[in-house]
Amino acid sequence: MAQTTEALTAERILAATEDVLRRHGPAKATVVDVARALGVSHGSVYRHFRTKAALREAVTERWLDRTSEALSGIVADEDRDPESRLRAWCAALFAAKRHKAGEDPQLFATYMVLIGEVSAVVDRHIADLTGQLTTIIENGVERGVFASAAPAVTARALFDATGRFHDPCYAREWEQPGIEAEFEAVVDLLLRGLRA
Amino acid sequence: MAQTTEALTAERILAATEDVLRRHGPAKATVVDVARALGVSHGSVYRHFRTKAALREAVTERWLDRTSEALSGIVADEDRDPESRLRAWCAALFAAKRHKAGEDPQLFATYMVLIGEVSAVVDRHIADLTGQLTTIIENGVERGVFASAAPAVTARALFDATGRFHDPCYAREWEQPGIEAEFEAVVDLLLRGLRA
Repeated sequence: MAQTTEALTAERILAATEDVLRRHGPAKATVVDVARALGVSHGSVYRHFRTKAALREAVTERWLDRTSEALSGIVADEDRDPESRLRAWCAALFAAKRHKAGEDPQLFATYMVLIGEVSAVVDRHIADLTGQLTTIIENGVERGVFASAAPAVTARALFDATGRFHDPCYAREWEQPGIEAEFEAVVDLLLRGLRA
Repeated sequence: MAQTTEALTAERILAATEDVLRRHGPAKATVVDVARALGVSHGSVYRHFRTKAALREAVTERWLDRTSEALSGIVADEDRDPESRLRAWCAALFAAKRHKAGEDPQLFATYMVLIGEVSAVVDRHIADLTGQLTTIIENGVERGVFASAAPAVTARALFDATGRFHDPCYAREWEQPGIEAEFEAVVDLLLRGLRA
């Protein structure tokens, strides 16, 4: 036991929690299941996450953060012009969400339930993503290629206007024929609107 | 009975169906309930709508058509410049959907269930609405105020990009503070993108 307890990091607990959620679904997964999967007592899990709700919140945040982390490289790539970065960012967000929904539909459905429970985590995720967009827009304004009096407002508008291509409520439409062309049409129109 | 049968129009049946749906919910409402509400036999109802599914489809279509009919006046108002018509159209669609969701939440929830059953009716509704947008955009292109190589594609992009302000999956957000400003930011950006 000493060995597993020593190595019991928050990350290990969260990885096990995701496995348990995948196998049991959000309604049935318990802290005891997570502890059993790790071969530790449920008390050891509670030392890292004080309540079941805190654990569910942390695992959802980790799932959402994987997306924002994947996109941060595009934001930081200042050698690339802002318009191409913005287009790549929107495409990468769509691809990441579509991948999550298509690759493991059961886990995706599970996280959809969790997301309904933890609105503060979702708000932080949206703030992360629109913050990344704001950085790209500000960069474009500085270089004189974008026009925006309020980059944060424009970022939120871009995020809202592309909702069909990242909001989970549209997940069923993401594999329909024509969706790529519809995505391109929306992004083209928005980029036209953004140009200086 | 002769009197009620004579006056038994499809519209009367649909109005009664909506009442029954409002009172009983989508799971419990039956054709017998509708017939009883009208004081006619269920056979009389079936003479107009051959199946319960056909009746549910027709009542959903009637509910959706109320929105597109309300917007058609804006499309036809050619004295008004295209940009102002487009802005008014988007605002009227948002207002109509928000009104439906807020005024009678139980009926709205009922129609959300029905909409999940009748995707062909929803597709027609979206085609109606994007057709109206196409007309406004074409008109703007003719007058040289809008730029669009393919007005129908642009119309669909506009419709998709404003989804947060008309798609029922966002109904819970429509009364949040700031939603009006977010709507304006999206429409401003789209109109900038559309200008010649």
